[in-house]
Amino acid sequence: MNDMNEATTTGILTIDLQALQQNYQNIRDYCLNFDSNIAVSAVVKANGYGLGMAEVSTALYKAGCRLFYVATPDEGMALRKTLADIDIFILDGLFIDAEKIYQTHNLIPCLSSQAQISNWYSYGQSIGTQLPCVLHLNTGINRLGLNLAGFKAMPTTITQSLNIHHVMSHFASADVPDDAQNLTQIAEIKQIVDFSPQLDYSFGNSPGIAYEPLQNMDFLNTHIMRPGVALCGVKTTDNYPIELKPVVSLFVRVLQTSSLEVGDMVGYGHQFTATKPMRTAIVAAGYADGMFRSLATSTENSGYFEFKGHKLPILGRVSMDMMVLDISQVPDGALNEGDFVEIFGQNISLAQVANWAGTIEYEILTSLGPRFLRNYING
Amino acid sequence: MNDMNEATTTGILTIDLQALQQNYQNIRDYCLNFDSNIAVSAVVKANGYGLGMAEVSTALYKAGCRLFYVATPDEGMALRKTLADIDIFILDGLFIDAEKIYQTHNLIPCLSSQAQISNWYSYGQSIGTQLPCVLHLNTGINRLGLNLAGFKAMPTTITQSLNIHHVMSHFASADVPDDAQNLTQIAEIKQIVDFSPQLDYSFGNSPGIAYEPLQNMDFLNTHIMRPGVALCGVKTTDNYPIELKPVVSLFVRVLQTSSLEVGDMVGYGHQFTATKPMRTAIVAAGYADGMFRSLATSTENSGYFEFKGHKLPILGRVSMDMMVLDISQVPDGALNEGDFVEIFGQNISLAQVANWAGTIEYEILTSLGPRFLRNYING
Repeated sequence: MNDMNEATTTGILTIDLQALQQNYQNIRDYCLNFDSNIAVSAVVKANGYGLGMAEVSTALYKAGCRLFYVATPDEGMALRKTLADIDIFILDGLFIDAEKIYQTHNLIPCLSSQAQISNWYSYGQSIGTQLPCVLHLNTGINRLGLNLAGFKAMPTTITQSLNIHHVMSHFASADVPDDAQNLTQIAEIKQIVDFSPQLDYSFGNSPGIAYEPLQNMDFLNTHIMRPGVALCGVKTTDNYPIELKPVVSLFVRVLQTSSLEVGDMVGYGHQFTATKPMRTAIVAAGYADGMFRSLATSTENSGYFEFKGHKLPILGRVSMDMMVLDISQVPDGALNEGDFVEIFGQNISLAQVANWAGTIEYEILTSLGPRFLRNYING
Repeated sequence: MNDMNEATTTGILTIDLQALQQNYQNIRDYCLNFDSNIAVSAVVKANGYGLGMAEVSTALYKAGCRLFYVATPDEGMALRKTLADIDIFILDGLFIDAEKIYQTHNLIPCLSSQAQISNWYSYGQSIGTQLPCVLHLNTGINRLGLNLAGFKAMPTTITQSLNIHHVMSHFASADVPDDAQNLTQIAEIKQIVDFSPQLDYSFGNSPGIAYEPLQNMDFLNTHIMRPGVALCGVKTTDNYPIELKPVVSLFVRVLQTSSLEVGDMVGYGHQFTATKPMRTAIVAAGYADGMFRSLATSTENSGYFEFKGHKLPILGRVSMDMMVLDISQVPDGALNEGDFVEIFGQNISLAQVANWAGTIEYEILTSLGPRFLRNYING
């Protein structure tokens, strides 16, 4: 899609890099206020939460970030081409027989199993130097990560030789501060730190940063916070204590305006039938662009978008490449072919769109399709 | 993601180009059996339904296809770079002030409004030749398209000068053959054809091909069928009359195997709690890859995947980059880090995955993320 430009694009996803940088700065200021041993990294996996890994990472680099997490080695290799002098941590861990690839691109695996630890150690032995790694421990989310017992069970010849950049673990419910499981995970973490107090650690994701017990861990050597979606301006708890600027907005093109008479039906399966004369706009965004079909499962619960102060409810089902919007509230002639309407931005929040679709802001962001022009501003 | 290869990929999306070609051939044979005036085009919008527009289109070209529909001018420009001597129809219509771009890349707009018709005509006047266009008429779906009355209301100096490649319209419920609205659309179509019997027409999408009243339209000059998702092997009705071969399968990498004890909870919000000892595999596909969060809204209704004849149910919520699967039914030691499990393919159908996610196969296909290696076979 190299020919993409405003004249031919179906939608414009605007990403405010200065707002992104400000969010990074605000998070860092907030954390350092609690604990001067905190470092703030950035999670830029899934193409920087859909906003463009290269552009997002470069902006964060300029804001002072030098520690980056991605999910996969492919993402790590792509990021390495963008930024040479950063640490890149691979959350997916070490893939089988991929040690040399990690070394070549200077990627640091988050080792999550005994097999991965052994393989990374053996590779270090074979090349005469132990390359850095992160140790990924499971403290209760039961996804990736080795239990402390499993780590302790490893031969000390191995574990004591590892070049451990830091130890990380992940919370299951940091966005629900009074969830009892958080305390179980905290207790587990304390055991880990007691076992290896000299190491650096990383526990706080976007909601974790705001979770009080993680803020006051000054018994840690260095505590690396790992915001991801918060950098994109998404507040992960109701009373998120850090000011975050909105980073992203989406406007999509009106392909055509039309009208409905009483009895006219709209879209596949004619889920909507007009009970009064209406005016419509057909806009160039559908489920192939991340506008989930679940945004409009029934007329009563469908989402709406915005144009100059007017609500534009979705009529009928979301199609692959388009949606039909009710523009009856917009003065006749004020909204025309070639205009752009707001899907989210100043007037419609990403949270609202996610709520209509029955999901979370993360999934909306990571589903935004490649057909939208990414328009980076304030870079 | 140019460095992507099997050693570092998280998942392998295999696309059988020969099966795709066979489906095209089967559809063509089926249609020509009814009516020798049928031509069969291909719809390859949304990146060829997620399978790769360039590769899919090239394979279909080799199978004899010369008529291609895409949604957007950006898609059209990309496809033009792949194939020089095909007709490319832009379903989104003619964008404002983009006439020269369409001409430069030899793109044929599906004109859907009086404004677009006027603009295309005026552009033709200005360059001394009327370039081809498709006329997109609305017969009842009430998305894009001009009503016949609106078309008739245009000055005949314009409409009679247009270089109309064909006239198209779209059915709202061709997948529900006994839906009464189909007959209303058919009646509308007959009026259109009566008005301009000398033109070529296109009415049948993937379900439309199988809809009987569209099969026997030998009163049409040429009838262009427009299969899209059917080419990908998706049967759009319960008794789809054409044999379609499966085109696509997805296998994803096991990042780690682990185990759960009674009371262990899995994933964000610990939606799942183990009531017995279990073994798990954490696989490298999450909602950023098109594995919808709605695949696992509750333990009772979650989907499952497959490994060597064993079901692997999803445990807890789908994360952005991974899912946790129950592998307790797989013999101990038979499924290990680095193995790949089937998300869909021979054992799990795309339809099943779509059903678990509460959507349709189209949305699963168009949401498959860029982190999977596209592995084209039999090309």
